[in-house]
Amino acid sequence: MPTQFDPPSGTRDFLAAEYEKREWAFGVLRSVFASYGFEPLQTPAFERLDVLLGKYGEDADKLVFKILRRGEHEASGEADLALRYDMTVPLARVAAAYGSQLPTPYKRYAIGPVWRADRPGRGRFREFVQCDLDILGSPSTLADAEVLAAHHDAMIGLGLTDFTILLNSRQVLSGLLEVFGVPPQLGSGVLISLDKLDKLSPDEVTAELAGRGLPGTIADDLVTAMTATDAEDRIRAALKDSEVGQAGVDEVDRLLALVAGQIPATRIAFTPRMVRGLSYYTGPIWELAAAGVPGSVGSGGRYDHLIAQLGGPDVAATGTSIGIERVLMLLAGDQAAGRGRLDVAVTVLGDDLAADSFALASAGRAAGLRAGVYLGGSGKLGKQIKWASDNGARWCLIYGHAERATGEVTVRDLTSGEQQQVPAGEVGGYLAARAGDRSA
Amino acid sequence: MPTQFDPPSGTRDFLAAEYEKREWAFGVLRSVFASYGFEPLQTPAFERLDVLLGKYGEDADKLVFKILRRGEHEASGEADLALRYDMTVPLARVAAAYGSQLPTPYKRYAIGPVWRADRPGRGRFREFVQCDLDILGSPSTLADAEVLAAHHDAMIGLGLTDFTILLNSRQVLSGLLEVFGVPPQLGSGVLISLDKLDKLSPDEVTAELAGRGLPGTIADDLVTAMTATDAEDRIRAALKDSEVGQAGVDEVDRLLALVAGQIPATRIAFTPRMVRGLSYYTGPIWELAAAGVPGSVGSGGRYDHLIAQLGGPDVAATGTSIGIERVLMLLAGDQAAGRGRLDVAVTVLGDDLAADSFALASAGRAAGLRAGVYLGGSGKLGKQIKWASDNGARWCLIYGHAERATGEVTVRDLTSGEQQQVPAGEVGGYLAARAGDRSA
Repeated sequence: MPTQFDPPSGTRDFLAAEYEKREWAFGVLRSVFASYGFEPLQTPAFERLDVLLGKYGEDADKLVFKILRRGEHEASGEADLALRYDMTVPLARVAAAYGSQLPTPYKRYAIGPVWRADRPGRGRFREFVQCDLDILGSPSTLADAEVLAAHHDAMIGLGLTDFTILLNSRQVLSGLLEVFGVPPQLGSGVLISLDKLDKLSPDEVTAELAGRGLPGTIADDLVTAMTATDAEDRIRAALKDSEVGQAGVDEVDRLLALVAGQIPATRIAFTPRMVRGLSYYTGPIWELAAAGVPGSVGSGGRYDHLIAQLGGPDVAATGTSIGIERVLMLLAGDQAAGRGRLDVAVTVLGDDLAADSFALASAGRAAGLRAGVYLGGSGKLGKQIKWASDNGARWCLIYGHAERATGEVTVRDLTSGEQQQVPAGEVGGYLAARAGDRSA
Repeated sequence: MPTQFDPPSGTRDFLAAEYEKREWAFGVLRSVFASYGFEPLQTPAFERLDVLLGKYGEDADKLVFKILRRGEHEASGEADLALRYDMTVPLARVAAAYGSQLPTPYKRYAIGPVWRADRPGRGRFREFVQCDLDILGSPSTLADAEVLAAHHDAMIGLGLTDFTILLNSRQVLSGLLEVFGVPPQLGSGVLISLDKLDKLSPDEVTAELAGRGLPGTIADDLVTAMTATDAEDRIRAALKDSEVGQAGVDEVDRLLALVAGQIPATRIAFTPRMVRGLSYYTGPIWELAAAGVPGSVGSGGRYDHLIAQLGGPDVAATGTSIGIERVLMLLAGDQAAGRGRLDVAVTVLGDDLAADSFALASAGRAAGLRAGVYLGGSGKLGKQIKWASDNGARWCLIYGHAERATGEVTVRDLTSGEQQQVPAGEVGGYLAARAGDRSA
């Protein structure tokens, strides 16, 4: 395939099978989200440049696809618009624009492409779908619980059961830094190192902490507490001495209790060492880990005040993001497969028979089946039956001059090879009945 | 609403009701297209600049949104990518890229946004959805018939019946120019003027034709033949003297005969004066006119060779484009409306009751209903019932300390105002049964 016919670097063409699989998954997600009373939101592919830039720092700004001004301004080489980088900045704009028209709290989901000029790689694209579920305007842990339970149900809906939700809280992390005596200025660096305990050995993390200037005894104590077989108990005990830490533990326990009926205990665990890197989280945080997949397949948490920082109103907020591109890679390809393009394929064995053949296909569609006529140039029956078979049809309707003479159609079952003569006017009913047999 | 929170000029935010209406319509289209054995195709939002530019002339190129190069190249002010302008250029690229992997003929549909830097206006957007249905690789009139019948069925599926398909053929137009003696160099201009017979008076069109340099008698003859009450008969008779014209009439008649069982004769008419402005059409052409809508709500035709001109292989092609944004404006807003956000709204009347309330909502979802808990800050029952009602819920589940003491839930029917005590463990079954009653 010559390079010039590829889609642009980091983007993909979705032909039928892949498209159907994705649409199936998006449909499952929409349905789960709706069952919780979340409503959809769709914003434009691009935003004004000033809405997008400067929201997540310089590194993020570099990944923004900017759109050149048009007409007489094109020569300036300046941009005035940019492709959507995530779903949260548009959410902040929408919250500012439609405030009173939106329900309170505003429970919305967004499923759609975002664009980032990242270096393309395995599983990393420049155009990819984000799937976000958020509640604006409720500080209640019940809101966190709804988001988390909906995320869980979405995974189950997609047929995935082998995953774990790692649950923690920013307050727990603050408490940890406090009770272990981590100097405040080292706090965020220490958390970043602790987050690596799932990839690095305890000794490596201890060394990294020391490298950050953390006194060796503190580093030792922290890593030992975090990696002990009774780590959770140790941390719970230690945090009793920290007001903020204990508040975090209480919040985690409350959230665990709320979702207990919905999320099996084997699939969710308080994980004190889990640190979401993003500094905007203000309460519970979580990450989904799936068997055999490095990194997370979804994450979220409470992010009060972020909407204000992004240009929206200052509202309490919590949300989750389903790593749908990764999840799609986990799915077997057969959700929508196993179906051919057609149920009923109709031969066209002469120009003078074409109108009748076309009407037979219509009758098939009227019976609720997918039906089409042969559009190729061969008048040979064998070729046309091969076309029917190549398109996965269950039946081939053979209609030649002999059939016209008797007012019948030869219905060939392409699975069994059996043929039956059916009066032309009764083909729709015959196929509908047979289709019912099959699915029953 | 401050200007800076608007979506960019010419684009729209789709909140829940509008989104649901659009998704409903797209779902109808997908289902109709699949019933004919068309398969979906989705290509990236942007293409390489050289793929897009120079395909439809300079005026079209000016409407292309170009994407600035990134990183060190950003300062050059140059673009290397551009947002999709239509669905046909990407189709040509896909046909070139995946040729042998695609079925022959390739029957595909594409529904998705395109972007044009047009001056925004009433019903004219810079981001709008195009819905295209095409068959590549079949020169057969049966392919034109499938496309046309599927377009018709899509309109019916959307609930629209008051529309007419104006059918013509490029060969008919060529024959007309021939038999009325129009000088070849005036041909395309004459057709453009004749196309205005639906908006201008015959005299105005005659004058415009004269202005183009067409001898007055020819202009008179042409306009008289086209606007006579027996125009179709006159044109049919006149075209008997033109080989190409008669071939066009035969093709139109063949197409009419093929779709006769599918499209009522009242909804399709041979319309010799209908000229699709686009020069790339090579066979039958059609346009859909809907009552009360100026311009067309869809159009298409055969366009052999265009795919090659757009950079793809030289294949026979026919297709149709549903003017879905215009069609959506014709649709009543109530396809997906009349539904609230929730079926079941659950009170939260105390922190100690929250987990039970959350579980009640889960039971509602397990019964196939949309259910959520109260996330607001008020502990007052009246406020919570108002919230339930505001969200369109059919039932409010009231669960306070009194209910907990008896292990029951008060189920309030928000339509009738009736209340019933139901054992907490039986709420799901109770709601499922009641929901069944309602829909039965």
